[in-house]
Amino acid sequence: MSKTIAINAGSSSLKWQLYQMPEETVIAKGIVERIGINDSIFTIKYGEGEKFNQTLDIKDHEIAVQMLLDKLIDLKIIGSFDEITGVGHRVVAGGEYFKDSVVIDDDVLAKIEELSEFAPLHNPANAMGIKAFRNILPNITSVAVFDTSFHATMPKVNYMYSLPKEYYEKYAARKYGFHGTSHRYVSERAAELLGKPLAETKIITAHIGNGGSIAAVLGGKSVDTSMGFTPLAGLTMGTRSGDVDASLLPYIMEKEGIANINEMIDILNKKSGVLGITGLSSDMRDIEDAYAEGNEDAILAMEIYTDRIRKYIAQYISVMDGVDAIVFTAGVGENADLVRDMVIANMSWFGVEIDKELNKKIHGKEAEISTADSRVKVYVIPTDEEVMIARDVERLSK
Amino acid sequence: MSKTIAINAGSSSLKWQLYQMPEETVIAKGIVERIGINDSIFTIKYGEGEKFNQTLDIKDHEIAVQMLLDKLIDLKIIGSFDEITGVGHRVVAGGEYFKDSVVIDDDVLAKIEELSEFAPLHNPANAMGIKAFRNILPNITSVAVFDTSFHATMPKVNYMYSLPKEYYEKYAARKYGFHGTSHRYVSERAAELLGKPLAETKIITAHIGNGGSIAAVLGGKSVDTSMGFTPLAGLTMGTRSGDVDASLLPYIMEKEGIANINEMIDILNKKSGVLGITGLSSDMRDIEDAYAEGNEDAILAMEIYTDRIRKYIAQYISVMDGVDAIVFTAGVGENADLVRDMVIANMSWFGVEIDKELNKKIHGKEAEISTADSRVKVYVIPTDEEVMIARDVERLSK
Repeated sequence: MSKTIAINAGSSSLKWQLYQMPEETVIAKGIVERIGINDSIFTIKYGEGEKFNQTLDIKDHEIAVQMLLDKLIDLKIIGSFDEITGVGHRVVAGGEYFKDSVVIDDDVLAKIEELSEFAPLHNPANAMGIKAFRNILPNITSVAVFDTSFHATMPKVNYMYSLPKEYYEKYAARKYGFHGTSHRYVSERAAELLGKPLAETKIITAHIGNGGSIAAVLGGKSVDTSMGFTPLAGLTMGTRSGDVDASLLPYIMEKEGIANINEMIDILNKKSGVLGITGLSSDMRDIEDAYAEGNEDAILAMEIYTDRIRKYIAQYISVMDGVDAIVFTAGVGENADLVRDMVIANMSWFGVEIDKELNKKIHGKEAEISTADSRVKVYVIPTDEEVMIARDVERLSK
Repeated sequence: MSKTIAINAGSSSLKWQLYQMPEETVIAKGIVERIGINDSIFTIKYGEGEKFNQTLDIKDHEIAVQMLLDKLIDLKIIGSFDEITGVGHRVVAGGEYFKDSVVIDDDVLAKIEELSEFAPLHNPANAMGIKAFRNILPNITSVAVFDTSFHATMPKVNYMYSLPKEYYEKYAARKYGFHGTSHRYVSERAAELLGKPLAETKIITAHIGNGGSIAAVLGGKSVDTSMGFTPLAGLTMGTRSGDVDASLLPYIMEKEGIANINEMIDILNKKSGVLGITGLSSDMRDIEDAYAEGNEDAILAMEIYTDRIRKYIAQYISVMDGVDAIVFTAGVGENADLVRDMVIANMSWFGVEIDKELNKKIHGKEAEISTADSRVKVYVIPTDEEVMIARDVERLSK
């Protein structure tokens, strides 16, 4: 009766999923939202489609964790806390310390908090989740799974910026990449679908959600990725600009009377991307609707959004000197057939071709959407970061 | 006896080349350096390898132009000023005003000065050169040839950043691109070498000098390029960083105690690139020497430098959904066989292959370096921005 819980803690939320291991069966999952605000929302899904909802004030993450555990007993999802033998926490930034998932001790926790500088919105929240579980279930195996660690295998040529080298030596200013757990999951699954040993595969994974990144995965190892020092870089995203000429910053700051660089970066993170281009929405479903209605800003946003994805795919073919499979995953990648269609549309010289009719039917499920003649397989693979977290707890418990 | 002079004015220099048109014969050329500093250096090359040198103080551009014209008479290069019927000025930034070269009148000159905001080091110097010639030879045809105008054909999907749209609408914040005259010259020449009508060609031009940019030229028109709002973006260059995560700026500014964003951008422009990576030099000849000696920083710099070129070439294949020819030009592109070799080394999946032995022998001269089996032609083509300027004067004089 070994159960593992996978935790993704945000600043005011706590997402969780409870697994029976090693079977990887999901026993229950849920989310606590609006922690520390008011009217917190507490949701659990379990059993045969059963749901539990409650709205009440939850002051902090520790109270959220206590409530969640108590409710697991109340709802008879578990008989006692002893059944839970492991907890895995998603942590966004692992910096140069963590090249793999790791069992959490005091030193690890201190380093996660120290790395808040690299992910000011995420690492402090992740650390709150870790502390809550350590206080309530101090004896179970506690593992940190980093968004960055899958990219720790990148070679220097790809993670170094062309800046004065002391910025790397003194301040660890380099490309880290993110969404690593997702890129790892779908690239492993793609190798299975290819029927080739992982070590012999060249896979490009497109994790496209509200945030988005592309990774070049060579022989199962990430060798390049589009996000950078932070998640701001790379693709055009829901609200993030992706790559821009850095000289635009002083130019716009002067024009707009923005005195503080952090305020400018905030605009690049929160008011740019497809939201900035269209002024309509950061949600690609809204952009697709406006596109269908012929809205010019939405048409431009769709073109830019898919162009930047295609450009990174093309780059990563050159990084690996080839590609066996391109994978679309995450909210947009799994569901937005129009995005997939527009990305692949301009890749005929590369020999990449999809079955356009089949593609239209694929939403949120696994499928091979390339044609039989395509030089490269194109897959839609729903991502599952939670099961990767549970697997890492299992692996590191031994 | 129609002669045209092509001018490239910098803040303290004036480069010029005198043509017999329409034959495009170079009659004389030269440079005035250290204008307004002291010990200005005045050089003319003419006739059968003859040279004239003088060191003296030249206070400003107008005096430099007057001296140069007087010396053309003294040295019997021309009989009278009347023989010079046209002057063409290189201008760096043409903004959204200038989509082609243009005959200079008061309004054009005012706009060139207004655009100094986009090229603070260059446009004011270009305007000084223009004014000097207008004062001394007021009746000849005077034409401005912009670095940006060849890229005016870029579609919106490629020139728009994913920023709040009012930054474009209000401040013309967009990608402009540079080195347009060079990309235009070598792409036209490549079409001749391909033996295809320009309108049917897909050409990627790599202008790689101390600065560098890549352009995708579809049917003779630029559709994308790696430099951006300013020449900072894109490739790793001699001293410029090229693309970086914008979030690095506040991070480094805080660590280094840099209060002003312009100071940070200055570091990205002048202390980064291969100079920043190696701490050795911004000159690729020095980097190649250190590379040959096994210097680790130089090895990394060469890898990064060529990787970024290759990534842009790969992107631009996807932009045009194909490519007929890749062209290397400018100081590094024409001479550094190792750079060319390392760029093409990882492109076998694309079917691009060069004759490595032949490539080693090509320095500063035109050549086809691809193998007979290569899917794509690879050319070295020495650039000639001056003759393009002279041709534009000729075209617009009619």
